[in-house]
Amino acid sequence: MKVEIIAIGDELTSGRILNTTSSFAARNLFEAGYEIYAMHTIGDSPSLIGEALKRAIDRVDAVLVTGGLGNTDDDLTNEAVSRALNRPTMPNLEILSSIRAYLDEITTEPVGKLEKLAWLPEGAQALSPQSRMAGYQLIHEDKPVFFLPGVPNQMKQLLVDHVLPILSTWHKDHHLATYQTIFRIFNLPETEVNRKISTLDLPTDVHIGYYPVFPEVHLSLIVRDKKNNNAKRLFRSSCKAILTVLGDAIYGQDRESMERVVGRLLQKKSLQLAIAESCTGGLISKKITDTPGSSAYFLGGVISYANSFKNDYLDVSLQLLDQCGAVSREVAEAMAVGVRNNSGSDIGLAVTGIAGPDGGTDEKPVGTVYIGIAASEENWVTRFRFSGDRWQIRNMAAQSGLDLIRKYLLQQDTEKQHSQIFEQY
Amino acid sequence: MKVEIIAIGDELTSGRILNTTSSFAARNLFEAGYEIYAMHTIGDSPSLIGEALKRAIDRVDAVLVTGGLGNTDDDLTNEAVSRALNRPTMPNLEILSSIRAYLDEITTEPVGKLEKLAWLPEGAQALSPQSRMAGYQLIHEDKPVFFLPGVPNQMKQLLVDHVLPILSTWHKDHHLATYQTIFRIFNLPETEVNRKISTLDLPTDVHIGYYPVFPEVHLSLIVRDKKNNNAKRLFRSSCKAILTVLGDAIYGQDRESMERVVGRLLQKKSLQLAIAESCTGGLISKKITDTPGSSAYFLGGVISYANSFKNDYLDVSLQLLDQCGAVSREVAEAMAVGVRNNSGSDIGLAVTGIAGPDGGTDEKPVGTVYIGIAASEENWVTRFRFSGDRWQIRNMAAQSGLDLIRKYLLQQDTEKQHSQIFEQY
Repeated sequence: MKVEIIAIGDELTSGRILNTTSSFAARNLFEAGYEIYAMHTIGDSPSLIGEALKRAIDRVDAVLVTGGLGNTDDDLTNEAVSRALNRPTMPNLEILSSIRAYLDEITTEPVGKLEKLAWLPEGAQALSPQSRMAGYQLIHEDKPVFFLPGVPNQMKQLLVDHVLPILSTWHKDHHLATYQTIFRIFNLPETEVNRKISTLDLPTDVHIGYYPVFPEVHLSLIVRDKKNNNAKRLFRSSCKAILTVLGDAIYGQDRESMERVVGRLLQKKSLQLAIAESCTGGLISKKITDTPGSSAYFLGGVISYANSFKNDYLDVSLQLLDQCGAVSREVAEAMAVGVRNNSGSDIGLAVTGIAGPDGGTDEKPVGTVYIGIAASEENWVTRFRFSGDRWQIRNMAAQSGLDLIRKYLLQQDTEKQHSQIFEQY
Repeated sequence: MKVEIIAIGDELTSGRILNTTSSFAARNLFEAGYEIYAMHTIGDSPSLIGEALKRAIDRVDAVLVTGGLGNTDDDLTNEAVSRALNRPTMPNLEILSSIRAYLDEITTEPVGKLEKLAWLPEGAQALSPQSRMAGYQLIHEDKPVFFLPGVPNQMKQLLVDHVLPILSTWHKDHHLATYQTIFRIFNLPETEVNRKISTLDLPTDVHIGYYPVFPEVHLSLIVRDKKNNNAKRLFRSSCKAILTVLGDAIYGQDRESMERVVGRLLQKKSLQLAIAESCTGGLISKKITDTPGSSAYFLGGVISYANSFKNDYLDVSLQLLDQCGAVSREVAEAMAVGVRNNSGSDIGLAVTGIAGPDGGTDEKPVGTVYIGIAASEENWVTRFRFSGDRWQIRNMAAQSGLDLIRKYLLQQDTEKQHSQIFEQY
């Protein structure tokens, strides 16, 4: 079953806003077994909206339109739909009464501009009229067409709670059995990944894609077959083959981020981490604490941006800072040891470097980063030389710091992480 | 002059990867005065690629295609272009020799799969053959068509360094004089912004758009006219009117983020900031240090995730933690005072709260956040109740913390920040 996605809004075609809603819709539809035929982004122009909508209804089985449903003057989707599909707009009484009830809580003023939200093309069925979220379904030429708001949170909620369940009742038999996964790879270039995979001689039904997603490479594996058992068998054997040739360069799968993998390993071993960050300025701690429940393995961190912070909070001696410089092997180790000792954590991670664009020297150019780890039995420091801009250098440094912790924790193990992934198949 | 953008890649239509390159291209083309007719995202399918390309060449003045130029097996753009536009692929000798020279540095093996990078559709002019970045231009039916790699860094560099300069030599006279800006608003809902603006009765040539960009609202102002002076005059008067009705709810303009505005104000006043973060876990410090040169006004921070960190690093007494709880007005103030005193900064900012999804109570539900500020003359704490998921709560908390600092710094001033913006017009 083919789906086309149309995102509407001048804010998207002028590039002011990144279109995250279409990607979210595509991922969820794709994972539910639909084929995404194409995605379009067009401005708030009724004629273009109508043209794109009609072409999509002609050639695919379902259409998803996002954006332009609000009550401000630049929201023109309903007008465009009405004209293109020849369905005059009419007031939806349920929505009107919901708006009135909402307003009654705060004012006795008339509905005013909000009334626009209730005027929908003929035949529209509101998806969630009581929720105060715009969004409706039309059946046009016997095909489902969904209209969702452009506001990401609302769009996502309506897609998951309403659109996917409704769609699943359409043309069920057309689905192919689909198995797919993403292997997330760090520290191995795309061409090297490609070269290793091409030694495998996988059957042509196995679809492999390579995607550099800075700072990682993602390898996508998709297997489709009319027979579920065939697809499943081929998928499993392909996974095993890929895991064998790529080893622990694969740090995780699907949506599992590096910080989640590290968190899981720390938790499994009941170890606690504390972090001292200089050039990454809080990025690593932010990543770690993105995960709910991270307080189980993360004690805290010190962002020692100024040298006084390195001295006061991490016990890095001013003499050492003076002698070796803040960006040095010695200071990275002292920071890691300092944050570990002062916090009582099992592992201390420290990052100091030059993120740029200024501050580089011949000896220590922009991109020079020292990452130190302090643990019970030993400390060590790795020097990196990252290229790119400030954002890239900071992200490479953060990811590399987490990857060093991951490898340290895996080393401790007799069983490797990817053997755990194995068990899933 | 109308431009259409086509992004190619299964990784985009399956939603695995967010399409950031199209937005980047749209923003830069739009700011250079071009109209973005539409943007499309399609999978690695030669027939779809060809169809979209031909339709675009038919209806707009220039086309930009990104993705599918690499040397892995799923890169099919050149093949599709070759078929759709009837231009057989041929080896580009300059690219071949550049690949050879690159390989010579590391291996004596034959070019192998990399040779694919050198086979381009007839008539292709490589944009930067020595750079090892794929990317070329075709003139088809007297219209420029650009093909860029999908890798964001490469695409961005080639767009800015090659595509925009080449495009500017085409049809110069078709450009309208365009003035545009984005006003960035925090802490005022979209409908309220709309209501205030609608009191202005701006002329119809002034195009206003409202965009909720969590956690902000962006107001876009665009004025176009054949005569530069008319456009400029109308733009200036509209800016002044908007600034007057929205006041300091407007925190910045265009790409100026909240953290940059705060940094600029701190620097202007020669004040230094230190931060103690609990529920935001490093997010505020990360935002502040995203800006190069932030060491001029940011000393560092403490991520006091565990209570022991609050006690050891911020001198928050265990008794106070026990008595009031880590998420409390008293602890927020003590954290702000602690980080200010211990670091010797002028201002201490502290955030403690419940980001969720767990940890809420009836008295302090998920989303409860206390933000404390300690300064030379006084300390104060504000309680917030944010709604949404963990990501939203953390981002609202971070943005609110920065906004409190901004308002504190503006209060200190007789001249307000938006009066500075005024001066630009």
